[in-house]
Amino acid sequence: MGHIGKQTITFKEPPVITYAYATAGPKEVQGPMGKYFDHPLEDELLGEDTWEKAEARMVQLTIQGLLDRAGKTPADIHYIYAGDLQNQVIASTFGVKDFNIPFFGLYGACSTMGESITLASMCIAGGMADLVIAGTSSHNCAAEKQFRFPLEYGGQRTETQTWTTTASGFVLLSRCGEGPKVTSVTPGKIVDLGVTDTFNMGAAMAPAAVDTILAHLEDTNQTPNDFDAIITGDLGNCGYDIAIDIAGKLGTDLSGVLQDCGKLMYDDEKQGTNCGGSGCGCIASIFTGYFYKQLVEKKLKKILIVPTGALMSPGSTQQGNTIPGIAHAVCIEMK
Amino acid sequence: MGHIGKQTITFKEPPVITYAYATAGPKEVQGPMGKYFDHPLEDELLGEDTWEKAEARMVQLTIQGLLDRAGKTPADIHYIYAGDLQNQVIASTFGVKDFNIPFFGLYGACSTMGESITLASMCIAGGMADLVIAGTSSHNCAAEKQFRFPLEYGGQRTETQTWTTTASGFVLLSRCGEGPKVTSVTPGKIVDLGVTDTFNMGAAMAPAAVDTILAHLEDTNQTPNDFDAIITGDLGNCGYDIAIDIAGKLGTDLSGVLQDCGKLMYDDEKQGTNCGGSGCGCIASIFTGYFYKQLVEKKLKKILIVPTGALMSPGSTQQGNTIPGIAHAVCIEMK
Repeated sequence: MGHIGKQTITFKEPPVITYAYATAGPKEVQGPMGKYFDHPLEDELLGEDTWEKAEARMVQLTIQGLLDRAGKTPADIHYIYAGDLQNQVIASTFGVKDFNIPFFGLYGACSTMGESITLASMCIAGGMADLVIAGTSSHNCAAEKQFRFPLEYGGQRTETQTWTTTASGFVLLSRCGEGPKVTSVTPGKIVDLGVTDTFNMGAAMAPAAVDTILAHLEDTNQTPNDFDAIITGDLGNCGYDIAIDIAGKLGTDLSGVLQDCGKLMYDDEKQGTNCGGSGCGCIASIFTGYFYKQLVEKKLKKILIVPTGALMSPGSTQQGNTIPGIAHAVCIEMK
Repeated sequence: MGHIGKQTITFKEPPVITYAYATAGPKEVQGPMGKYFDHPLEDELLGEDTWEKAEARMVQLTIQGLLDRAGKTPADIHYIYAGDLQNQVIASTFGVKDFNIPFFGLYGACSTMGESITLASMCIAGGMADLVIAGTSSHNCAAEKQFRFPLEYGGQRTETQTWTTTASGFVLLSRCGEGPKVTSVTPGKIVDLGVTDTFNMGAAMAPAAVDTILAHLEDTNQTPNDFDAIITGDLGNCGYDIAIDIAGKLGTDLSGVLQDCGKLMYDDEKQGTNCGGSGCGCIASIFTGYFYKQLVEKKLKKILIVPTGALMSPGSTQQGNTIPGIAHAVCIEMK
């Protein structure tokens, strides 16, 4: 393995994603992706008394589902990489703590699935562990309360606003075994074009998504046509169009190959989600629930997943800061 | 390199900490460690209009100081690993964004210096980068406002309470070069003994510190006497005593070798800090400002730094959750 180009790492012995597991909430299960989730939730509270605890419980259920599917116990796992949107990544903390697995807490906003798979892949490819788990989560009610308004407030949603997904996705990465392989990663830079509208996160993240995609293509000397799909998460409808536009102006046509998990998650018209889905759990659950299976079944052979994050807090916005974006690209191939 | 024992990684080609840089606030500069900090601050606002922006500026100044010392430009650096205590690690985000270096955002509470050096070392040792930066920060006024009370409230401090440090420390890790080397790392598990007192973080973190130290000793078949110092950060006075006590009951005498950056940072009696220092920046600035230089001058040959974090948010505590702890151990040797 080694570092190539500006910011890409290619793995000589690519880690294998031997198992993946997706959990999703009731609204997500009613959407177009609904049938692909491994663990559909009937209740967004999961028997807990707060949204925050419900998200932690969802993380725990997702990791347990992954372990069960893989026939592994927590003692088999060397490290776990996880993060979420809650202040001080509390959903991950309380979701993983009882597994007793050494833990790396991450914060990458909605880019966290890219960050966790990247760091976990580096660990395996560097020969530092045999089995690691990586993933993330988001919960609509916990996130809306923390970042915007409590649901009970009933605030009207803007046209450019996305719907924070209640979902979680985790993968098991292995040094050996069968399955799709992580062949290269391009960790992203923070890109800040000065967007300040917290109701238009797609616009804030689109420049970062394009920056990382173009860096990956340049570093690896490839074109968009070398991929069956380039999958961002989650630009939503507005951000998607902006990304296509920016890339086009920079001379790269992504229109035939770019998909976005924010666009895939809901039927916006029927479900009232306006501009699509968002939240760390969106691409995490759609990758683990849908695209991973497409790879295993060899319906897709090579994809680039590009989780994108808007790096802000309510406090930073209230203090007049911009909303910088970040995106991490992970190339996954099935031979 | 490879994975040994329960949770330790030893590096066959250990990354070199070629440079380190410490920034500290006015109160910290007046303490016993004051003369060792590279960049003493005269003003906790650093010319900004909010504490939060001041912390981001401190991160920026520390990274710039490190780059200047090393004679490097941002373009020389492959990746940067950083995190802080602010919601959504906003101090790191805004502190690193203008350097245009691919960024991994971390959250490990006050264990973040251990987490960032661990992940950065794995990147270098795995042959995936030549030069990376790792570090963290904390700001007293930003942290107190977010986790406890705004300073203006003038709340009385408890006897067991530590003082959140205004400080930042960053290191440059290199595949080649001269300097202290990271020879092994032991990423920690989350340990939760049910502590719920947010004014006694030392008690919440001590069990995790001991768990990771004992795991490191067991995995590497060493005793405390194999180290010139085992340095936690930041248990403070109460947590330090608890750690010695727990380790003793488990059959390991740490009393001759254990130091704690929370105990080292202030003159508690003169400075009114009660139970010592805390915050990610405490061990970060004392390691980079003091211990790193002791290693370079070969006054110390082998140390184990063990940054410890209390994994809570105001929300998790208000919802009745416990305060789990985590600690990551990093062995640093100078030959």
